[in-house]
Amino acid sequence: MVLMRQEIGDVLRDFRLQKGRTLRQVAGEASVALGYLSEVERGQKEASSEILAAVADALDTPLSVIMGEVSERLAVVEGLTMPLGDRVPDTVPAELVSGYATELVS
Amino acid sequence: MVLMRQEIGDVLRDFRLQKGRTLRQVAGEASVALGYLSEVERGQKEASSEILAAVADALDTPLSVIMGEVSERLAVVEGLTMPLGDRVPDTVPAELVSGYATELVS
Repeated sequence: MVLMRQEIGDVLRDFRLQKGRTLRQVAGEASVALGYLSEVERGQKEASSEILAAVADALDTPLSVIMGEVSERLAVVEGLTMPLGDRVPDTVPAELVSGYATELVS
Repeated sequence: MVLMRQEIGDVLRDFRLQKGRTLRQVAGEASVALGYLSEVERGQKEASSEILAAVADALDTPLSVIMGEVSERLAVVEGLTMPLGDRVPDTVPAELVSGYATELVS
Protein backbone atom coordinates (compact mmCIF):
# COMPACT_ATOMS: atom_id res chain seq x y z
CA MET A 1 0.00 0.00 0.00
CA VAL A 2 1.38 3.39 -1.03
CA LEU A 3 1.24 5.71 1.99
CA MET A 4 1.00 9.40 1.32
CA ARG A 5 2.49 10.49 4.65
CA GLN A 6 5.80 8.86 3.69
CA GLU A 7 5.99 10.82 0.44
CA ILE A 8 4.89 14.03 2.18
CA GLY A 9 7.56 13.52 4.83
CA ASP A 10 10.28 12.93 2.24
CA VAL A 11 9.25 15.98 0.22
CA LEU A 12 9.10 18.27 3.27
CA ARG A 13 12.54 17.12 4.36
CA ASP A 14 13.99 17.54 0.85
CA PHE A 15 12.59 21.07 0.48
CA ARG A 16 13.91 21.96 3.93
CA LEU A 17 17.40 20.64 3.20
CA GLN A 18 17.39 22.29 -0.22
CA LYS A 19 16.84 25.60 1.55
CA GLY A 20 19.54 24.86 4.10
CA ARG A 21 17.15 25.07 7.04
CA THR A 22 17.27 23.06 10.25
CA LEU A 23 14.36 21.16 11.75
CA ARG A 24 14.51 23.58 14.69
CA GLN A 25 14.20 26.65 12.45
CA VAL A 26 11.26 25.34 10.45
CA ALA A 27 9.48 23.94 13.52
CA GLY A 28 9.89 27.28 15.27
CA GLU A 29 8.57 29.32 12.37
CA ALA A 30 5.65 26.95 11.84
CA SER A 31 4.90 26.83 15.59
CA VAL A 32 5.10 23.04 15.53
CA ALA A 33 6.94 20.91 18.10
CA LEU A 34 10.35 19.86 16.81
CA GLY A 35 9.76 16.19 17.64
CA TYR A 36 6.43 16.26 15.84
CA LEU A 37 7.89 17.77 12.65
CA SER A 38 10.66 15.20 12.80
CA GLU A 39 8.10 12.40 12.96
CA VAL A 40 6.16 13.94 10.06
CA GLU A 41 9.34 14.07 7.97
CA ARG A 42 10.01 10.41 8.73
CA GLY A 43 6.47 9.48 7.67
CA GLN A 44 5.54 8.36 11.17
CA LYS A 45 2.86 10.97 11.85
CA GLU A 46 0.07 12.33 9.69
CA ALA A 47 0.29 16.11 9.40
CA SER A 48 -3.04 17.89 9.70
CA SER A 49 -3.95 20.33 6.94
CA GLU A 50 -3.26 23.23 9.31
CA ILE A 51 0.23 21.96 10.12
CA LEU A 52 0.99 21.25 6.47
CA ALA A 53 -0.01 24.80 5.58
CA ALA A 54 2.13 26.24 8.39
CA VAL A 55 5.18 24.16 7.42
CA ALA A 56 4.78 25.03 3.73
CA ASP A 57 4.62 28.68 4.76
CA ALA A 58 7.74 28.34 6.91
CA LEU A 59 9.50 26.77 3.91
CA ASP A 60 8.37 29.65 1.67
CA THR A 61 6.97 27.01 -0.67
CA PRO A 62 3.36 26.94 -1.92
CA LEU A 63 1.43 23.90 -0.77
CA SER A 64 0.55 23.22 -4.42
CA VAL A 65 4.26 22.85 -5.24
CA ILE A 66 4.80 20.48 -2.32
CA MET A 67 1.80 18.38 -3.27
CA GLY A 68 2.79 18.42 -6.94
CA GLU A 69 6.12 16.88 -5.97
CA VAL A 70 4.30 14.37 -3.73
CA SER A 71 2.07 13.43 -6.67
CA GLU A 72 5.08 12.87 -8.94
CA ARG A 73 6.82 10.65 -6.40
CA LEU A 74 3.61 8.70 -5.80
CA ALA A 75 3.42 8.10 -9.56
CA VAL A 76 6.92 6.62 -9.48
CA VAL A 77 6.02 4.37 -6.54
CA GLU A 78 2.82 3.34 -8.33
CA GLY A 79 4.83 2.50 -11.42
CA LEU A 80 3.02 5.07 -13.55
CA THR A 81 6.20 6.97 -14.44
CA MET A 82 9.81 5.92 -14.44
CA PRO A 83 12.23 7.46 -11.96
CA LEU A 84 14.32 10.20 -13.53
CA GLY A 85 17.44 8.02 -13.61
CA ASP A 86 15.82 5.59 -16.04
CA ARG A 87 14.74 8.34 -18.40
CA VAL A 88 18.09 10.03 -18.76
CA PRO A 89 19.94 9.10 -21.96
CA ASP A 90 23.31 7.38 -21.59
CA THR A 91 25.10 10.41 -23.00
CA VAL A 92 24.44 12.45 -19.85
CA PRO A 93 27.13 11.88 -17.21
CA ALA A 94 25.63 9.94 -14.33
CA GLU A 95 27.08 12.31 -11.73
CA LEU A 96 24.96 15.14 -13.13
CA VAL A 97 21.72 13.38 -12.36
CA SER A 98 22.39 10.70 -9.75
CA GLY A 99 21.62 12.94 -6.79
CA TYR A 100 18.19 13.89 -8.00
CA ALA A 101 17.43 10.44 -9.33
CA THR A 102 18.30 8.94 -5.97
CA GLU A 103 15.90 11.33 -4.28
CA LEU A 104 13.11 10.40 -6.68
CA VAL A 105 13.37 6.67 -6.12
CA SER A 106 14.16 6.74 -2.40
CA MET B 1 -5.10 29.54 5.03
CA VAL B 2 -5.40 26.96 2.24
CA LEU B 3 -6.52 23.67 3.75
CA MET B 4 -5.56 20.53 1.91
CA ARG B 5 -8.38 18.40 3.31
CA GLN B 6 -10.94 20.62 1.57
CA GLU B 7 -9.27 20.10 -1.81
CA ILE B 8 -8.84 16.37 -1.16
CA GLY B 9 -12.52 16.11 -0.24
CA ASP B 10 -13.61 17.95 -3.38
CA VAL B 11 -11.40 15.83 -5.61
CA LEU B 12 -12.54 12.53 -4.06
CA ARG B 13 -16.17 13.52 -4.49
CA ASP B 14 -15.62 14.67 -8.09
CA PHE B 15 -13.85 11.42 -9.06
CA ARG B 16 -16.61 9.41 -7.38
CA LEU B 17 -19.39 11.29 -9.18
CA GLN B 18 -17.49 11.11 -12.46
CA LYS B 19 -17.54 7.32 -12.10
CA GLY B 20 -21.22 7.31 -11.19
CA ARG B 21 -20.61 5.72 -7.80
CA THR B 22 -22.51 6.32 -4.59
CA LEU B 23 -20.97 7.16 -1.23
CA ARG B 24 -22.29 3.82 0.03
CA GLN B 25 -20.58 1.85 -2.75
CA VAL B 26 -17.20 3.50 -2.32
CA ALA B 27 -17.35 3.40 1.47
CA GLY B 28 -18.21 -0.30 1.34
CA GLU B 29 -15.40 -1.17 -1.04
CA ALA B 30 -12.89 0.88 0.92
CA SER B 31 -14.12 -0.54 4.25
CA VAL B 32 -14.69 2.97 5.57
CA ALA B 33 -17.76 4.12 7.48
CA LEU B 34 -20.18 5.96 5.19
CA GLY B 35 -20.48 8.93 7.55
CA TYR B 36 -16.72 9.20 7.79
CA LEU B 37 -16.24 9.20 4.01
CA SER B 38 -18.96 11.80 3.73
CA GLU B 39 -17.13 14.04 6.22
CA VAL B 40 -13.86 13.54 4.35
CA GLU B 41 -15.55 14.57 1.09
CA ARG B 42 -16.90 17.70 2.78
CA GLY B 43 -13.43 18.57 4.08
CA GLN B 44 -14.50 18.14 7.68
CA LYS B 45 -12.25 15.20 8.54
CA GLU B 46 -8.61 14.49 7.72
CA ALA B 47 -8.25 11.17 5.92
CA SER B 48 -5.35 9.05 7.12
CA SER B 49 -2.92 7.80 4.49
CA GLU B 50 -4.37 4.31 4.84
CA ILE B 51 -7.92 5.52 4.23
CA LEU B 52 -6.83 7.69 1.29
CA ALA B 53 -5.15 4.67 -0.28
CA ALA B 54 -8.22 2.50 0.27
CA VAL B 55 -10.60 5.10 -1.19
CA ALA B 56 -8.31 5.69 -4.19
CA ASP B 57 -8.29 1.93 -4.73
CA ALA B 58 -12.08 1.74 -4.48
CA LEU B 59 -12.29 4.54 -7.07
CA ASP B 60 -9.86 2.66 -9.38
CA THR B 61 -7.80 5.83 -9.46
CA PRO B 62 -4.09 5.98 -8.61
CA LEU B 63 -3.33 8.11 -5.57
CA SER B 64 -0.83 10.05 -7.70
CA VAL B 65 -3.64 11.11 -10.03
CA ILE B 66 -5.83 12.21 -7.13
CA MET B 67 -2.99 14.18 -5.54
CA GLY B 68 -2.02 15.67 -8.89
CA GLU B 69 -5.53 17.07 -9.21
CA VAL B 70 -5.36 18.29 -5.59
CA SER B 71 -2.09 20.06 -6.39
CA GLU B 72 -3.60 21.78 -9.43
CA ARG B 73 -6.60 23.01 -7.47
CA LEU B 74 -4.36 24.21 -4.64
CA ALA B 75 -2.39 26.20 -7.23
CA VAL B 76 -5.61 27.90 -8.33
CA VAL B 77 -6.54 28.73 -4.73
CA GLU B 78 -3.00 30.00 -4.13
CA GLY B 79 -3.30 32.19 -7.21
CA LEU B 80 -0.41 30.46 -8.95
CA THR B 81 -2.49 29.41 -11.96
CA MET B 82 -5.74 30.72 -13.35
CA PRO B 83 -8.87 28.61 -13.16
CA LEU B 84 -9.68 26.90 -16.44
CA GLY B 85 -12.56 29.29 -17.17
CA ASP B 86 -10.22 32.27 -17.32
CA ARG B 87 -7.87 30.54 -19.74
CA VAL B 88 -10.50 29.59 -22.32
CA PRO B 89 -10.59 31.92 -25.33
CA ASP B 90 -13.82 33.82 -25.98
CA THR B 91 -14.44 31.86 -29.15
CA VAL B 92 -15.27 28.69 -27.20
CA PRO B 93 -18.96 28.56 -26.23
CA ALA B 94 -19.27 29.00 -22.49
CA GLU B 95 -21.60 25.99 -22.13
CA LEU B 96 -18.82 23.69 -23.34
CA VAL B 97 -16.56 24.59 -20.46
CA SER B 98 -18.67 26.07 -17.69
CA GLY B 99 -19.24 22.77 -15.89
CA TYR B 100 -15.57 21.94 -15.59
CA ALA B 101 -14.57 25.52 -14.88
CA THR B 102 -17.11 25.70 -12.07
CA GLU B 103 -15.64 22.57 -10.54
CA LEU B 104 -12.14 23.95 -10.71
CA VAL B 105 -12.93 27.20 -8.95
CA SER B 106 -15.46 25.82 -6.46
